[in-house]
Amino acid sequence: MNNIFNFQRFLRIALFTISIAFALGQTGELIAQHRVTEPNYDEYIDTVTSEESFFTIGNVWVLVCAVLVFIMHLGFATLESGLTRSKNTINIIFKNLFVISSGLLLYALVGFRTMYPGVEFNGFFSLGFWIDVNPGDYLDIMSAKYANYTWWTDFIFQAMFAATAATIVSGAVAERVKLSSFMIFALFIVGLAYPVAGSWEWGSGWLDRNGFHDFAGSSVVHAFGGFSALACVILLGPRRGKYATDGPSKPLLGHSMPLAAIGVFILWFGWFGFNGGSVLSAHPELIGLVIANTALAGAGGCLASMVSTQIILKKPDVSMALNGVLAGLVGITAGADSMMPGSAILVGSISGVLVVLSILFFEKIKIDDPVGATSVHGTCGIWGTLAVGFFGEAPVLWQLIGAMSYALFAFAFSFLVFLAIKLTIGIRVTAEEEDVGLDISEHGQEAYAFDK
Amino acid sequence: MNNIFNFQRFLRIALFTISIAFALGQTGELIAQHRVTEPNYDEYIDTVTSEESFFTIGNVWVLVCAVLVFIMHLGFATLESGLTRSKNTINIIFKNLFVISSGLLLYALVGFRTMYPGVEFNGFFSLGFWIDVNPGDYLDIMSAKYANYTWWTDFIFQAMFAATAATIVSGAVAERVKLSSFMIFALFIVGLAYPVAGSWEWGSGWLDRNGFHDFAGSSVVHAFGGFSALACVILLGPRRGKYATDGPSKPLLGHSMPLAAIGVFILWFGWFGFNGGSVLSAHPELIGLVIANTALAGAGGCLASMVSTQIILKKPDVSMALNGVLAGLVGITAGADSMMPGSAILVGSISGVLVVLSILFFEKIKIDDPVGATSVHGTCGIWGTLAVGFFGEAPVLWQLIGAMSYALFAFAFSFLVFLAIKLTIGIRVTAEEEDVGLDISEHGQEAYAFDK
Amino acid sequence: MNNIFNFQRFLRIALFTISIAFALGQTGELIAQHRVTEPNYDEYIDTVTSEESFFTIGNVWVLVCAVLVFIMHLGFATLESGLTRSKNTINIIFKNLFVISSGLLLYALVGFRTMYPGVEFNGFFSLGFWIDVNPGDYLDIMSAKYANYTWWTDFIFQAMFAATAATIVSGAVAERVKLSSFMIFALFIVGLAYPVAGSWEWGSGWLDRNGFHDFAGSSVVHAFGGFSALACVILLGPRRGKYATDGPSKPLLGHSMPLAAIGVFILWFGWFGFNGGSVLSAHPELIGLVIANTALAGAGGCLASMVSTQIILKKPDVSMALNGVLAGLVGITAGADSMMPGSAILVGSISGVLVVLSILFFEKIKIDDPVGATSVHGTCGIWGTLAVGFFGEAPVLWQLIGAMSYALFAFAFSFLVFLAIKLTIGIRVTAEEEDVGLDISEHGQEAYAFDK
Repeated sequence: MNNIFNFQRFLRIALFTISIAFALGQTGELIAQHRVTEPNYDEYIDTVTSEESFFTIGNVWVLVCAVLVFIMHLGFATLESGLTRSKNTINIIFKNLFVISSGLLLYALVGFRTMYPGVEFNGFFSLGFWIDVNPGDYLDIMSAKYANYTWWTDFIFQAMFAATAATIVSGAVAERVKLSSFMIFALFIVGLAYPVAGSWEWGSGWLDRNGFHDFAGSSVVHAFGGFSALACVILLGPRRGKYATDGPSKPLLGHSMPLAAIGVFILWFGWFGFNGGSVLSAHPELIGLVIANTALAGAGGCLASMVSTQIILKKPDVSMALNGVLAGLVGITAGADSMMPGSAILVGSISGVLVVLSILFFEKIKIDDPVGATSVHGTCGIWGTLAVGFFGEAPVLWQLIGAMSYALFAFAFSFLVFLAIKLTIGIRVTAEEEDVGLDISEHGQEAYAFDK
Repeated sequence: MNNIFNFQRFLRIALFTISIAFALGQTGELIAQHRVTEPNYDEYIDTVTSEESFFTIGNVWVLVCAVLVFIMHLGFATLESGLTRSKNTINIIFKNLFVISSGLLLYALVGFRTMYPGVEFNGFFSLGFWIDVNPGDYLDIMSAKYANYTWWTDFIFQAMFAATAATIVSGAVAERVKLSSFMIFALFIVGLAYPVAGSWEWGSGWLDRNGFHDFAGSSVVHAFGGFSALACVILLGPRRGKYATDGPSKPLLGHSMPLAAIGVFILWFGWFGFNGGSVLSAHPELIGLVIANTALAGAGGCLASMVSTQIILKKPDVSMALNGVLAGLVGITAGADSMMPGSAILVGSISGVLVVLSILFFEKIKIDDPVGATSVHGTCGIWGTLAVGFFGEAPVLWQLIGAMSYALFAFAFSFLVFLAIKLTIGIRVTAEEEDVGLDISEHGQEAYAFDK
Repeated sequence: MNNIFNFQRFLRIALFTISIAFALGQTGELIAQHRVTEPNYDEYIDTVTSEESFFTIGNVWVLVCAVLVFIMHLGFATLESGLTRSKNTINIIFKNLFVISSGLLLYALVGFRTMYPGVEFNGFFSLGFWIDVNPGDYLDIMSAKYANYTWWTDFIFQAMFAATAATIVSGAVAERVKLSSFMIFALFIVGLAYPVAGSWEWGSGWLDRNGFHDFAGSSVVHAFGGFSALACVILLGPRRGKYATDGPSKPLLGHSMPLAAIGVFILWFGWFGFNGGSVLSAHPELIGLVIANTALAGAGGCLASMVSTQIILKKPDVSMALNGVLAGLVGITAGADSMMPGSAILVGSISGVLVVLSILFFEKIKIDDPVGATSVHGTCGIWGTLAVGFFGEAPVLWQLIGAMSYALFAFAFSFLVFLAIKLTIGIRVTAEEEDVGLDISEHGQEAYAFDK
């Protein structure tokens, strides 16, 4: 079958990637000490100072937040499954498992050191490999005021973010993308495009140097993911039957609202880590403020979306309310550390209105995005970034330049890579495969089997 | 349609509320500094002392617990969905989204400062507005021994609790309440009744001054919610067909036990934050004890419920076992900080028996509460509060007075407000709407759409 | 009915157990102080030193991890439900509720003090009762360098682990085991076999004294559970229809892949606590490394399983990918603290291949394990333990001896106990009960009731 043929191609790439990961991993380990020696607790306790206490607390906080960010991947998987048809559910779960797993390995292999190139960085591009650079002595790292956490904590917190961009795309292309093609595309986004673009702001690159402020990634993560998704759905075209041009027209409803709701609540839960951990220490004032702002912006987004949906659609639509929460969260992500709760509510509420208008707009121009990822992450990511200029202290012009840079780069990179895949192995399943569902056609299994 | 008409009414109220929130938020921000300035980490680290370390750790602990309490709202949403029929699932999810979102905003607007009126409090009632009172310098707050966490952390931890009471009601009135009426009711409970009653104990009010002890809210939160729910279900009447008086009699079974189980496990998980964070610091002895007691009481409740269900109903009933866990947790909530694990097991186990008897009792007197909220939160909330008198150090008489005060106030307030709504816009959907299900009649959508 | 008869037997045992728990609990409380007195915060803050800060932070970290381990029980419940047929779903949920609840109580009653016998331990066996031994003064405990957390924190973290072994068995015996028989069996495993075997390594017993290293339990928990499961499924025999010897042959598919996926993501999430908390302090270097290793090994397991399934089965199988994640996690559990990330990726990836081969092997020899527990926990538990010898610093020979000791003891103990139950009250439901499903035959209820 065509599917298996493409899989062999993917297999070769995956095996190659993993081989390199191991080779580099082992080399790195030979350079550093191969085996970890148990720390001497008594000695550590005897020498601990208040400064190290602050360091130790910050390290715990950022790690807890990293674990919270991890569970967002379950949120994405259930949200996407719930908002699509049950015949494509296994496909979505499989894609999400692949994205988080390959994302973590690729970030260890190339992403972390590409995104954080260090002091010699030219500001635009610097490819680095393998996490394992002299991580031996965390006290050295701290005394150099590197950060309020260890090297490993830094790596794993950032690694949990890395797969998010590709996961956002995963929802938008659901129900008709070819599995192997998406997997190859995801490797390019997670392994190359995201860390390079991320270095511009978080790696002390050109945007950071010009005063652009994106606290936890309204642009770096969300607008990036949303505009990457936009490029992909334009190339991919709408699902069969969606706009009544290639089959009988009927609404393509999500198959399980409980699954979708589980997704949104878990994403909100994880977002407390996403934003909270981005403080990069346990500085008491800031982490409390950030968590409060994150909660209030999500709440504002939800209510504003309920109200505007009621005005426009004249009914209390639950999927709009769910997307309203996410819109509020995306909106506050850039400025959760730099505005007061009143402003956070306002930013989140405007996001909640914007996401409704944006979803209806994309519907109107027949861009088919089953989960609204382009609107939630793209539109509200741009808005959230600009909002820091209005309500925080960042220069509005550079907020605009930064947001546009991420959106355009993500769109262009994704368009070119996905086009290249389209012209070679194809990006879309056949009409028959789409009709029967990707679970059967790609995986040979159904997601549900209720007993009679 | 009637439904939309009521929605416009709700809309006006919601818009009015949100407008006030923003107006006050913006005013508050003008008074305080509008923009948050980045803290100076190096300076902070240089001045950090052991005292501040303890403060910083407590702040992290309470914030982590606030995040755990947040996810309880997913627990409630899935538990309630699972224990009711699939034709009302979207309605339940929508209600829960509204309750947590409006709850957070209302608590910022009015709840927090009404519940914690400060030193001048008369002990009974004091309306306060907007969170944002001179939160600038957390070091000042700490040096005044205000608490072991910052102002924002205090706000968000308490805000996560605030919506719980209305969520408890949400389950009891499910499957026949009119959406807009419930939403209006929820605003009154979350925005007014809960913070006023809460101030009696946690705001250093009259109950606190008399030695009443309710650690994390067996009465303040749970009995309050349970007796509010009781008033509502009495006014609302049973679901059609439940007691064979208004249609063909058949058991109204919950539609998904996995959803219900997800709900209970997530509630248990979040309860560790609910009780653990109520220590309001990271005091080592107490937080460990509280978490252990919370786990053991839930376990005792579950086993005791299994055993008593087996004796009474002669079968291993999973929904009773699930409610047994919650009963044990509600029971230990008032005294998790003031008894040893042996007592916690006993308190939880008695809860597990009580919840079974209470559910059967309410069934017998034909009070229809689809999820057993009245028994779980009301009955076991009273029991848990009294148990502190028996196993802890609080005076039994004042435990009784306190528990009764919360139960009676919640019942009376809810009865009057819900009655007023009943006499104006009505509280119940039509028989036809109930039969077709609230998902179709209120939201125009179905929760599930499995492909053939 | 036969079922009820057995239940009376179970009831007597359960009541007896609970009575003893209470009796001991109350006695323990009389010995210790009955009521907890509120700590004096001001006094504590005044005397706090850096050493105590480190203690306080470690206590918070281990407690947060305990809460994360708790939610793994939801992961197991949903994974097992999802991978089995919908007619046995309530039964699985009920079993899991019973296992965690009785596990927590039994661990308080007998497990904790049997597993950690103290300095006088002979190294092999020492039965101890009740948690509550002079826990009054945590400062004494700390100054004795007992640990970096309090007595209660130690208890609850270990208690959350204790039910895991029985839960692993629960999945393997699903769909045909008699409920009451499993419950009795679980009491023996959780209350006796697991803590006795655990004391050999974590209670400073004979394996620990010989250099055996099992950081968080690849052998102590997972191989133990996996080989216990193997003994049970051998005694129980395959499900009807599985191998076409006792009915029409058809694949016995899991009924909900979303439930299974929720299970695996939550298990991964909780595993960060399982491994992270096993550091038993907040030592900054080690906890960051352990979390990074846990994430990377799970990712490696997932990808390696995807690749090897593609090669062997020629299709992207989602349940193999899910088991690949768990395999990687089981594999790294013994050595997450003692190898660098490159090695962790390698160990996890080899686990991901091993689990596929192991599942196919057990299929071939007609050992019916519906969820693959024997392969995931047994096979990969052994591998993970050996891997510490290859990539960490432990002696390979003692790693082999330790792993074999756990596997053989678990197998032999489980075989004997389950055989005794088989010969007395039986371990398997009747063919009719199995065909109609355990939900109806044991619980008289169905898990799902979708409205038409």
